[in-house]
Amino acid sequence: SQRKKIAIIGGDGIGPSVTHEAKLLLEIYRDKAGLPLDLWELDLGADRYLRDGVTFPKEIQIAVQRECAAVLLGALGDPRVPGLEHARDILFGMRFGFDLYANVRPVKALSDRLVPLKGRGAKDVDMVVFRENTEGVYVGMGGQFKRGTPDEVAINEDLNTRKGVERIVRAAFDFAKRTGKKRVCMADKSNAMRHAHELWLRVFDEVRREYPEIESRHLYVDALCLLMIQDPSQFEVLVMNNLFGDIVTDLGAALQGGLGMAASANVHASDPTRVAMFEPVHGSAPPLAGKDIANPFAALLTVGMMLTHLGWPDEEKRIERAVSEAIEEKACTVDVGGTLGTRAAAAWVRERVAKEL
Amino acid sequence: SQRKKIAIIGGDGIGPSVTHEAKLLLEIYRDKAGLPLDLWELDLGADRYLRDGVTFPKEIQIAVQRECAAVLLGALGDPRVPGLEHARDILFGMRFGFDLYANVRPVKALSDRLVPLKGRGAKDVDMVVFRENTEGVYVGMGGQFKRGTPDEVAINEDLNTRKGVERIVRAAFDFAKRTGKKRVCMADKSNAMRHAHELWLRVFDEVRREYPEIESRHLYVDALCLLMIQDPSQFEVLVMNNLFGDIVTDLGAALQGGLGMAASANVHASDPTRVAMFEPVHGSAPPLAGKDIANPFAALLTVGMMLTHLGWPDEEKRIERAVSEAIEEKACTVDVGGTLGTRAAAAWVRERVAKEL
Ligand SMILES: CC(C)[C@H](C(=O)O)[C@@H](O)C(=O)O
Ligand SMILES: CC(C)[C@H](C(=O)O)[C@@H](O)C(=O)O
Repeated sequence: SQRKKIAIIGGDGIGPSVTHEAKLLLEIYRDKAGLPLDLWELDLGADRYLRDGVTFPKEIQIAVQRECAAVLLGALGDPRVPGLEHARDILFGMRFGFDLYANVRPVKALSDRLVPLKGRGAKDVDMVVFRENTEGVYVGMGGQFKRGTPDEVAINEDLNTRKGVERIVRAAFDFAKRTGKKRVCMADKSNAMRHAHELWLRVFDEVRREYPEIESRHLYVDALCLLMIQDPSQFEVLVMNNLFGDIVTDLGAALQGGLGMAASANVHASDPTRVAMFEPVHGSAPPLAGKDIANPFAALLTVGMMLTHLGWPDEEKRIERAVSEAIEEKACTVDVGGTLGTRAAAAWVRERVAKEL
Repeated sequence: SQRKKIAIIGGDGIGPSVTHEAKLLLEIYRDKAGLPLDLWELDLGADRYLRDGVTFPKEIQIAVQRECAAVLLGALGDPRVPGLEHARDILFGMRFGFDLYANVRPVKALSDRLVPLKGRGAKDVDMVVFRENTEGVYVGMGGQFKRGTPDEVAINEDLNTRKGVERIVRAAFDFAKRTGKKRVCMADKSNAMRHAHELWLRVFDEVRREYPEIESRHLYVDALCLLMIQDPSQFEVLVMNNLFGDIVTDLGAALQGGLGMAASANVHASDPTRVAMFEPVHGSAPPLAGKDIANPFAALLTVGMMLTHLGWPDEEKRIERAVSEAIEEKACTVDVGGTLGTRAAAAWVRERVAKEL
């Protein structure tokens, strides 16, 4: 069928409430704009895990992969599950299990007011980070030797493959080419990590030659972090490993007005027909749960990224514009300088969007 | 003898010129204030390496360890040595070879003008990062398998030992206690790196119990980077592994006014009688070399850290005050908003210091 099935996992903490607001936005697109969307809510997260031990059952994984075009994930993590097993099973179950090798994280400020840097405004913060999403230190390889003794040695391995590095670097250049961006910058720490990151340097150097029209640049990740603060306007597309992408996009979130504004897509970039997963960058923030104060905008912007992925790119821009207006009008939550609750702020944006549909 | 011998390695790029300015400051302390300092200049760096293949000869290492109280290092790295062999031999030859396990990097803004964050000033940026300096990904463990083929796998290991983690965490708490700081924060990525960083979490949790008067806090490194921008005033003492310390202190440098303002000490913290190494955080910046434009203040502030280490802590404060005044008066280089050259800016600070001696 031409209908697109979307699995929705609210998750833990503030996850369910921001995801609920995002779902209402999807319903407007389905009911008012007539987009062929089927929404399928999944009961997964800490509550479910504590109730019956289920994290991310195989049959659900298979059904999602077979039937769904996209997954919308809220956030995972709950103090009642200290080891975060369920969170890892679900999050990495999708990132790794579905081979969603590109974690695409726009670092885009939607209002001058949200940019924390002196003399800088929204126009200076507009880049997209391509974070490798299936390798690196996230593979979990390593161990502990003589644990608990004075002689303990603990190791994690940063594992990188030619295939893994090449496909994410290529995804970044392809994106730049497709969207008319002029600059791609790769960040690594090859001056210290001479095995793993020399591969990044070598692959980057090879791949960039295939895109002579795009300016390519290499930075050590420490220098990148410095320059993102000193002059973010120089960056358009960034590509880096899993760990550095994690760090740099949280830093990037600070330039956007905080984690409440940061959206992300997890995609198998070379085959857009495969299921993709969309999540706000923020965590579950347990202390904020159930208080109607969490910022729903990252979740709404994440819906925008999903709609672009599904073939309706104008909607991402429409949602961005509505959020941007909400920020300007202070129709937003306290973290971004407003006075509204989660529900009211999201409703404001939805109304603005609905009016144009 | 009671005299303190200081080895001076200018190094590459801008290293020799900023180090020369730092040496002139040490000479003032020797000649005008009568501090018992002997200065010993070593000809090491890219020029030497290209001339006769020497990087950091064993006999020099031994002599420095036996005879010197401190080393002043400029910066290493030269485009004529693409693999940076000499730089690694010298830098890691000291950090690892002398077992200088604490890389102490103050992130302190010396003028409101230098803080790039809206609504923040110098009083908000005043923390000290304790970076582990002898382990982590810097040990160089790992390799490349099937190099150059489509099946290549490249690995670097993040190696951590109980001994290594405990001594740096302890150094951070001891420093906090000694200097009256109230808060220590440890950053890791234990939610993804469950072997290596679970050790950090466990050791931190044990050690902090020995310092009940100090508030301790744990953050994931991504969250730390975000919070350093959103509100740096909450941090006093930070402790983390080698790689994260590298990244976080470059980010920190952005809050101080750039790498031209960032000083550092590499010490074996539990035994101050061992030789220690002092270097500005900046690199050799080859394009700036020989133009009299590099900022000498990081090198001068590094002399301050050295004098504290050698037993004259008032001088660090005196140098800081002089640099701070220079910034206020715009008697500084262009990177920090002045118009002076390297030599003139350094001379301004030295005169200010000399007047008080
Ligand atoms: C929760 C955590 C494991 C995760 C990560 O490190 O990827 C999060 O920080 C993120 O950025 O999505
Ligand atoms: C030159 C490089 C290997 C070094 C490091 O990563 O330690 C530098 O960035 C530093 O911070 O001293």
